[in-house]
Amino acid sequence: MSLVSRLKRLLVGKPIATKHAHNERLPKRFALPVFASDALSSIAYASEEIMLVLATVSVGLLSYTFNISIAICALIGLVAISYYQTIHAYPQGGGSYIVSKTNLGPFAGKVAGASLLIDYILTVAVSVSSGVLAIISLAPQAQTYMVEIGIVAVALITVANLRGARESGIFFAIPTYTFIVLVIAMIITGLFREGRPVPTEIAQAPVKELSWVYTFLILRAFASGCTALTGIEAISDSTQAFKEPVARNASQTLAIMAGTLSFMFIGSSYLAEKFHVIPMKVTATDFKTVMAQLCIYIFGPGSWFFPALQVATALILFLAANTAYADFPRLSSFIAKDGFLPRQLGVVGDRLVFQNGIVLLSVLSTILIVLFEGDTHKLIPLYAVGVFLSFTLSQFGMVFHHLKKGSHWLNVGISGLGGSVTAVVTLVIFVTKFEYGAWLILVALSAILIVFSLIKRHYTYLGEVLTLSEDDTVPIVKTTALLLVPRLHRGVLKAIAYSQSLTNDVRALHVTLDPGRTEDIKKEWNRFGADIPLVILESPFRSLVDPIIEYIDQAREEDPHTMITVIVPQAVPKRWWHSVLHNNVALYLKVALGSRRNVVVTNVRYFLP
Amino acid sequence: MSLVSRLKRLLVGKPIATKHAHNERLPKRFALPVFASDALSSIAYASEEIMLVLATVSVGLLSYTFNISIAICALIGLVAISYYQTIHAYPQGGGSYIVSKTNLGPFAGKVAGASLLIDYILTVAVSVSSGVLAIISLAPQAQTYMVEIGIVAVALITVANLRGARESGIFFAIPTYTFIVLVIAMIITGLFREGRPVPTEIAQAPVKELSWVYTFLILRAFASGCTALTGIEAISDSTQAFKEPVARNASQTLAIMAGTLSFMFIGSSYLAEKFHVIPMKVTATDFKTVMAQLCIYIFGPGSWFFPALQVATALILFLAANTAYADFPRLSSFIAKDGFLPRQLGVVGDRLVFQNGIVLLSVLSTILIVLFEGDTHKLIPLYAVGVFLSFTLSQFGMVFHHLKKGSHWLNVGISGLGGSVTAVVTLVIFVTKFEYGAWLILVALSAILIVFSLIKRHYTYLGEVLTLSEDDTVPIVKTTALLLVPRLHRGVLKAIAYSQSLTNDVRALHVTLDPGRTEDIKKEWNRFGADIPLVILESPFRSLVDPIIEYIDQAREEDPHTMITVIVPQAVPKRWWHSVLHNNVALYLKVALGSRRNVVVTNVRYFLP
Repeated sequence: MSLVSRLKRLLVGKPIATKHAHNERLPKRFALPVFASDALSSIAYASEEIMLVLATVSVGLLSYTFNISIAICALIGLVAISYYQTIHAYPQGGGSYIVSKTNLGPFAGKVAGASLLIDYILTVAVSVSSGVLAIISLAPQAQTYMVEIGIVAVALITVANLRGARESGIFFAIPTYTFIVLVIAMIITGLFREGRPVPTEIAQAPVKELSWVYTFLILRAFASGCTALTGIEAISDSTQAFKEPVARNASQTLAIMAGTLSFMFIGSSYLAEKFHVIPMKVTATDFKTVMAQLCIYIFGPGSWFFPALQVATALILFLAANTAYADFPRLSSFIAKDGFLPRQLGVVGDRLVFQNGIVLLSVLSTILIVLFEGDTHKLIPLYAVGVFLSFTLSQFGMVFHHLKKGSHWLNVGISGLGGSVTAVVTLVIFVTKFEYGAWLILVALSAILIVFSLIKRHYTYLGEVLTLSEDDTVPIVKTTALLLVPRLHRGVLKAIAYSQSLTNDVRALHVTLDPGRTEDIKKEWNRFGADIPLVILESPFRSLVDPIIEYIDQAREEDPHTMITVIVPQAVPKRWWHSVLHNNVALYLKVALGSRRNVVVTNVRYFLP
Repeated sequence: MSLVSRLKRLLVGKPIATKHAHNERLPKRFALPVFASDALSSIAYASEEIMLVLATVSVGLLSYTFNISIAICALIGLVAISYYQTIHAYPQGGGSYIVSKTNLGPFAGKVAGASLLIDYILTVAVSVSSGVLAIISLAPQAQTYMVEIGIVAVALITVANLRGARESGIFFAIPTYTFIVLVIAMIITGLFREGRPVPTEIAQAPVKELSWVYTFLILRAFASGCTALTGIEAISDSTQAFKEPVARNASQTLAIMAGTLSFMFIGSSYLAEKFHVIPMKVTATDFKTVMAQLCIYIFGPGSWFFPALQVATALILFLAANTAYADFPRLSSFIAKDGFLPRQLGVVGDRLVFQNGIVLLSVLSTILIVLFEGDTHKLIPLYAVGVFLSFTLSQFGMVFHHLKKGSHWLNVGISGLGGSVTAVVTLVIFVTKFEYGAWLILVALSAILIVFSLIKRHYTYLGEVLTLSEDDTVPIVKTTALLLVPRLHRGVLKAIAYSQSLTNDVRALHVTLDPGRTEDIKKEWNRFGADIPLVILESPFRSLVDPIIEYIDQAREEDPHTMITVIVPQAVPKRWWHSVLHNNVALYLKVALGSRRNVVVTNVRYFLP
């Protein structure tokens, strides 16, 4: 086994056979952490993002946080019910992409698919960046290494996912459940503690009255809070990963997730207001997230609860990225199978995961983390537009599905309401965040749609030109072998033998780089060259490759139906690093001959003893 | 012509034929700037480095600068005379490496060669860094981009050198002559101007008396000043680049260079003392080099002379690196021809320059600039050890040469004196700078010597195992062709035809990644597969490559004398970026089969219309 293979085995484990595929399905208790960590972990930043928007104008406006959170929780309920229906209608999975494509046509499907792909990438970037912020709240000296910590986290998650879905389930269950228990414990304790007195900062803040002037700001805060909904569709995308009965298990998990999410979100927003938490900028010295501040107010700075919650928060956020790792590769494999993405993304690797999709997601999200310097607040405006766009498409898709199937009017109504509300929310998010980065999503979405079309066009064209017709026959060709002889040595003997075994038309080529040696070559060739004629090629510019190419072009002109096989003897040293001491002529020739038809370049290797 | 070729042509120019080689020889007026810019440009930093060492203890010691410079100029005279002899004795060039090797044996030659290689790399790093300092003296706002400016300078010099030696000569003459004229003008003007009054800093400095306590410091300052001698051997290394009569032209150029260098060095050291210049650290705000300060004191800050001299200094320093670019590749080609470095370094490119050596030098010196943050003062302690070591070896080599030839006793005496003095200087430099970085040179030197031996051993071994003996004969082999058929399309027809033209033993292999399609493949194969048997391979782990390798291993066991040719049909798209939409099975197979004997992997390309 090669070094690379051994390294791969060590990292991702032994191959798993196709027939064991059903073993990789998840029971509910593991499916929840794998598919719900994204949605649940948004507790760590959703309230904070609402507050950051409000605080840009005045900390006096922070009292709107709770009401905005209530509105968002209503939205969570509506969307969850809508997806509950989707899971039952499409137990084979596929989520928004499949639903939109099937019911609204291929274009809607592509838009939904592209939006979700973007949002999975953003999920990884936002969750990991936010996880790093939890670490910094605990260890301020790590602030300078934010981006580096994020990159390492992405790398670790990548490896965990390349190992396969079930191991991921076990691996991710403990932090997720710990986080849920700690947050709920904090909320309950906080309810019974006395609130912090109003700090002077807030008491002296100018605005407290609701005013129409602030409508846009409130909407923008609401839009930022909507990031809490990202990931809610994950379960419906991945029903195939659930144990039988798929639909029941998946929809129950969805209900549990939505309930937990709403409780934790409203609870922490309520407490943030009760304890008058003021959000900080990430560049602030002694930066603390809203959750970290809350934890300190409730349990005191010295309590074990503070580090425990920060660690659990960081872990669930890193693992939240895992939701995207479960879904991005699966979704891109669906899209690839429809011919809109490279086929390689549809290939299941030897650990039963879509490894190409996993690697692609890692690369793209790492680029985002580096570009946005790991600042969650800079990434948030890009987030959620795509998710809500796909929500809208998926729910209108469900309206058509219900109409087609003749379902109960209540089903149609719920989906219609869900679709209309999410359509409005999409518009709100897009408009209020446009200048902060949402425009970028429009650009990315258009670019992806164009790429989809180009790829589809190429595959369609491939199908057309490559498909065999009745008239196609195997042509008759003959082969001319050109054997390169830089100098005569033992390695060449084998190449001579091989050339002769291929065809009767073998010619040896020698390029004179050192004119003094040409006579020696001729003499030696007469002894060992069998009956093969030796062609001496002059090289006025000391190039090895150019005279060979000229000769080949001439030979091709003489007989256009002959396949020319260039045979390059190559010594294979015992240690790979010895190869820097050998020329690699075959590679140069392959590049140089890249555009010539009917030419094949072949290495005949000679293993050094 | 491919994009890469066209880009290369644009950068480095059209190829030059071997028979035009003599046109690339340089007349004296161009040889001086090309080979002497290194030595001459050291004026920009040599005095300053002496002063920086003295100032570490007390600015009161700066008055030793002039005396130390006198001693160094005596050394310049001695070394120049010694190399004058070398040029006449070895008009074919090769300098210290050839002289040491021929007269003192291969080990001394290798030590001299390795020392010089190290010093050429350091020449580039030191000269470029120092050139950047001249720019910063003029434009302090550039201080933050020191390293970046250095990297760009190296890149530009690389391109100039890849274009070939003669163009370099023209390209480099103007700045070098401008620098010489400006420095001499400054020295003469300075002699007639009244000196600056002693600044309080120096007046209040504690030490003025010569004391034995300072011996080590004085020696260290002397050692730093010896960097003025680096590059003095360049002409003797490259006599082959001079016009005929080679020896006369080269030795005259050497004499002119040594005279100019001594005058400028003594002159500027004298003025630095007269005007009480105090050297600055590179991190100082409003950093100015000693030469820049001197220029301002003599001509005033508003004069055109200040920017003119700074620009000329920066240019000659960047071009000084060019001395190394003329010599490093030439020296490494000598060493490569002796089998101690990879043969590729001995290959003359299509512009009649050793392009691999040029690129190698650029990479290594850029690494040094980045590692030492472009700070000349940090690089200087590494510098000069190697040069003086090679001086010593070369001059003792000349002693033996004279003895062998029965030359005049004066010749023997000069070389012997030169060798002894430079041996002492080598020791002084090594000891006084040991802790400041000279130890690193010892490590690098040992490492290079070890690499030399390993490379030589590999080539010796290659020669042994590859040389044909009387008993060697061409073996008789037969070929089995294995044709991969992922699915049947037009591209495969050509591969079928090609396989049949090679051998009668063709087998088609199909790996079942999608068991549902196997029957279709069989059916189609019966129509188009000629008489070739189709082998269906199961793939329980969904790997395309593993079952093929297993099959090959089995076939090799059955008949160990058969060469197995794996034929992979490959569609070549019209645009290169379409290839991300196609699998590259042949590459995977090549890597996977890398260690298997008697296996050849061949791509048969099918050009998409």
